[in-house]
Parts: sequence; C-alpha cells; structure tokens
Amino acid sequence: MAELVNVAVDAMGGDNAPAETVKGAVEAVNADGRVKVFLVGHKTAVLEELKKYQYNPEQVEVVHAEEVIEMAEPPVMAIRKKKDSSIVKALYLVKDGSCDAFVSAGSTGAVLVGGQVIVGRIKGVERPPLAPLIPTDTPKGVSLLIDCGANVDARASHLVQFAKMGSVYMEHVMGVKNPRVGIVNIGAEEEKGNALVKETFPLLKNCPDINFIGSVEARDIPGGAADVVVCEAFVGNVILKMYEGVGGVMLKKIKGGMMSTFRSKIGALLVKPALKNTLKAFDTEQYGGAPLLGLKGLVVKTHGSSKAVEIKNSILQCIAFKEQRINEKIREKIILEEV
Amino acid sequence: MAELVNVAVDAMGGDNAPAETVKGAVEAVNADGRVKVFLVGHKTAVLEELKKYQYNPEQVEVVHAEEVIEMAEPPVMAIRKKKDSSIVKALYLVKDGSCDAFVSAGSTGAVLVGGQVIVGRIKGVERPPLAPLIPTDTPKGVSLLIDCGANVDARASHLVQFAKMGSVYMEHVMGVKNPRVGIVNIGAEEEKGNALVKETFPLLKNCPDINFIGSVEARDIPGGAADVVVCEAFVGNVILKMYEGVGGVMLKKIKGGMMSTFRSKIGALLVKPALKNTLKAFDTEQYGGAPLLGLKGLVVKTHGSSKAVEIKNSILQCIAFKEQRINEKIREKIILEEV
Repeated sequence: MAELVNVAVDAMGGDNAPAETVKGAVEAVNADGRVKVFLVGHKTAVLEELKKYQYNPEQVEVVHAEEVIEMAEPPVMAIRKKKDSSIVKALYLVKDGSCDAFVSAGSTGAVLVGGQVIVGRIKGVERPPLAPLIPTDTPKGVSLLIDCGANVDARASHLVQFAKMGSVYMEHVMGVKNPRVGIVNIGAEEEKGNALVKETFPLLKNCPDINFIGSVEARDIPGGAADVVVCEAFVGNVILKMYEGVGGVMLKKIKGGMMSTFRSKIGALLVKPALKNTLKAFDTEQYGGAPLLGLKGLVVKTHGSSKAVEIKNSILQCIAFKEQRINEKIREKIILEEV
Repeated sequence: MAELVNVAVDAMGGDNAPAETVKGAVEAVNADGRVKVFLVGHKTAVLEELKKYQYNPEQVEVVHAEEVIEMAEPPVMAIRKKKDSSIVKALYLVKDGSCDAFVSAGSTGAVLVGGQVIVGRIKGVERPPLAPLIPTDTPKGVSLLIDCGANVDARASHLVQFAKMGSVYMEHVMGVKNPRVGIVNIGAEEEKGNALVKETFPLLKNCPDINFIGSVEARDIPGGAADVVVCEAFVGNVILKMYEGVGGVMLKKIKGGMMSTFRSKIGALLVKPALKNTLKAFDTEQYGGAPLLGLKGLVVKTHGSSKAVEIKNSILQCIAFKEQRINEKIREKIILEEV
C-alpha cells in the first residue's frame, strides 16, 4: 500500500468549528483512502463530534490542543504566546514531518505568520503567496489568483516568483497544460500600469520557464483570460472580494426581480433547479482553500465561514500536492532562476 | 430665462460616434430646456446625423473639427499635435468660458491629459481624479468610486483631496446628505493595509469636513458600505472592471442555466421581463460618465462603447454640476485645508 497523505486539520478554526471541520475531515477520509487526518483541537469537543460518524479509524487521529487562537488576536503575538493552540501544534506536525499538510479555517493572519515562522520557507523563496482558486470561464472552471493577502507592498522579484510557483501549481495540481500567466493591469499595453507592474512586466517577459501572455485587465479575469493571475496582495484581495461582493448583490437583485410579479414568481419556480446548478460552479467554496505556496510543507487556508464541503475539498487537494511533489518542483524552478 | 448650461460634446469620440453621440446630445436637449450642446466634430458627418432628428435649434450648435484623436494614440503627443481635433477644440471651449462642461467617449488618456493641460486644475488641487458612479445597494443606487484611472501611484495627500472632492460631488450633485466616506482596504481594522492606506487612514480620520467611516472591504462595496469609495487609481480601475467582469460572466451563466432544460426554458420566458428591469439598475451605463474632478470646468469621460443613453445622461449630469456650483465648493474645501 502506498504511503498515506497525512493532513493536520485545525479542528477549532473558523466560524463553524468544530462541527463542520470534523464533518469535513470525516467526509474526506471516507472519500479517499489515501488520506489520514490529524484533528488538532480540544479532545473532548472533537471526540464528541466524531461520535456522530462512521469512518476507518486508521485514517483519523485526534491531537489534543488546549488553546484556540481567536480571529481578532494580533497574529505574531498569538503564534508566540499560544504554544498549545491548534494552529501552532498543527504547524509543528508539518515542521517535524509527521504531517504533509495543514488545513485551517482559523485566523488568516496566524496561519500566514505561523506558516512562515514554524514551517519555514523553501530556500530561495522570498515571500510565500496565498493563492486561491477563483471561478473563471475556462475548461477547468478555475484560475489561480496569486498573491491574495500574504504580502502587501510586494516587489517585482516577488511577483516573478509568484508567477513561477503559480505555474507549477496549475500545471501539476490542477492539470492545466502550459498555464497562461497574466499580470493584472489597467490596460493591455506594455507601457501601461503603475510602477510595480512596469518593473515586473519585462522580467516576466524574459522568464523562459513560464507561459507569459502579458497584461490582463480585471474585466477579463472572470472570463478566463489567464490561468495564473499575478498581482500584489492588496489588488488580489480586492479581486477576490469583488467576486463575492458583486456576485452577492447580483443574486439578491435577481431573486428580488423574480419575486416582483406573479408571472415571474411562477417562472422562478421552474427556473430554480437549473439555475442552482449553474451558479454552484461560480461559488468559491467549491474549490477548497487557498494554498500558501513556497513553504516546506503545504499550508491551506480556507474561508473562516467554511462548511464541511470546503474543508473536505481542501484536504483532498493535499493529495495531488504531495503526489505531484509540488514543493520539489517549486524548489527546482526557484533554484534554476538563481543559477 | 435662466442662463443655459453649455456643454461641448465630442461628436467623434467613442466606438459609436458620430451616430450615438449626436443622438444622445439631441435626446439631452429634448429632455431639458436648460442645456445647450456644442457638437464638436466633422461638420458634414455631424449635420448628416442631426438631419434625422427634431430639436430646438437654439439648443444645438455645431463646431467644426477637422481631426480625430484615435484610441491608440499616445495621449500627450496627440493633445500637442492635433490642435484641430474634436477633443482639443472642445477643451478650449471650456477653457475660454464658452462652455461649462465637456463630455467625451473618446480616448481616456487624451481626455485626462487634455483636461489638465488645457482646462487646468483648480488652485490647490494636486491631482484631478476620475470618479465614476458605480451601482450599489444604497437608497440612491450608486456610490462614487474615486480615483479610477487618472493617477497611478498616488500619495496620501492626493487621497485626502479625493475624499473631499468626492464628498462635495455626492452631496450636491447626487443629493446624498452627509455622504459616508470609506477607504478601500483589505480588512476593517485601522492597522491593516498597505503603506499608502496606513498613511492615509489617520489623515482622513482627522479631516473635519468629511464623514469618514473608516475602511471598506471590496466585498462590501457593491452592498453600499460607503457613498464615497476612496482608493488609488490602480485599485479603483480593478474595482470598476471587476463589476463588468463578474457581472458579465454571471449573466452568461444564468442565461445558460435557464436554457439548460425544457422546464427552465418555460420559466425563463416568464421571468425575463421582471428580471430585465432589476438588472437595469445594475448597469453602469445608466449613470452617465465619470467626471474628472478638480478642473476649472467640468470634464466628463463616458465609456468608449457609449450608446446615446449614456451620452444623454452625461450631458444632463452637467446641469446639477453647474447649478450647484460644484467647482466653487471644491475650491472652498481645498483652500480651507491649506489655511
């Protein structure tokens, strides 16, 4: 039997923990025999949830952690002080090699800081980007948005590394051949952009090992203009949040419109099932969490509001990551650059 | 009779000129007796279009311009060389006081550069921002996004002026009492953000003459979290374009979903009229163009793809701008700051 993929799960992280985190973890092991989950959190609470489900006990282990890092705590301080928190204990499982990956719906700041401080960066990686999959009108239905919250005020050299790491991820985890890399810009021409983009553009153009297609305007991102969408974290955060914001208000308006007349109410009943199906493809939660790339182990951050399905998908995502030896491939690409 | 509001219109600007620009101008004068339009463009072409309509001839004048600035031309060079272009001639009409305002669907770069070089900035204004109205879930249905393309790599002092100018506009043109000013950020807390936002936040907080409500996350912009959404131009451009991008793909998916089964096709027929009405409110073209604020005259840039309705609304927008003496109010607010 092949080696299991060991995934530490922050059982206490997120708005719906531990109920949804434990449920998602069980669903993941039941869906794939190659995964073993380490549920890190308060033992009593975790066992209480586990009792509800049937699963192969060899695929589930509970690791007790006395503390929880709250969403509002300053991340650096929390990581330093709360040694017995679920996030810190889980990250040490990755650091010491007991686990291949860590999945958390907890404090983004603590996961990002802890990932860098405890697990550590791959040699040569300047800044590890947070890279969520976003729904786009592409054959795979998703593109990678990189970076999206880990490093504000990035430099051009960081963006070049993001492009390389993102290419590895999309090619080997998502199976997109020769992924198209675009840089987010305010116009299609090379001379357009702010200082950072103008500096980064020629560097990407001269990068031999990525498929750089030039600038992409935000308007064309949802339509699938690029497979790897490179930008600095502030802009990436705005793009990700605009998906949620515009999508949410549009759905509200559409529902309101459908309920506005008697005729349209009847129509809404007929349209609903088909509509639900298509809109599901446009729901970010379907795709699991965002990997923090460039660390010596995989760290995946899922939405604070994650339900079981997102936890499950985030855990399953770790299989391809390990089996495709993504970190070795990232290391090669980054080292190649330095020679 | 009160003085007319004189609006120069770039008859040759945009993808649908001169047919839609002339049509929109005629619709504007027919809708409001207070407006006189100066159609600047090639006389033969403009008169050919004008022949199609009925209107009060005292409200329409044609000003011949031999040249047209193309979308792809480098703006600075185009403004300098093409003295007989519709954009340059129209801007001189504003500069010499013959017109109060200028509306163009032509080259954004040329309009922005020309506005600053020919019309000139109000004393004290460091950079004139481009500020479109975006659809939001507010009582008025719109918020002002400022800045959105005129100045990349802005400084904190620029953003403070954007907040003031935007407040004047929303209060006196759009009638929003004590408009809520928010700065676009990647989290709600004051300590979050990139270097620019961190520097700007306390300046806005200490600004006595605006209603600053703190950070707004991009997710909450469409829902109407602020009436004046302050950001630097690169981020503003991304926000504006994400509206179009996400909206466009979602509508495509919804249409696809509605057409996917026989049942849903019947439903779609029943839902369509009501849906069309609600989605109209979420269409950026309804609200006319984006003013370039802080100039010694009003310059309004509309989409390159503008149809007559957008040209008309952009022209009508100039009435409130003049009657409410917006530029005097901006001057007062900016001077106040310097004392």
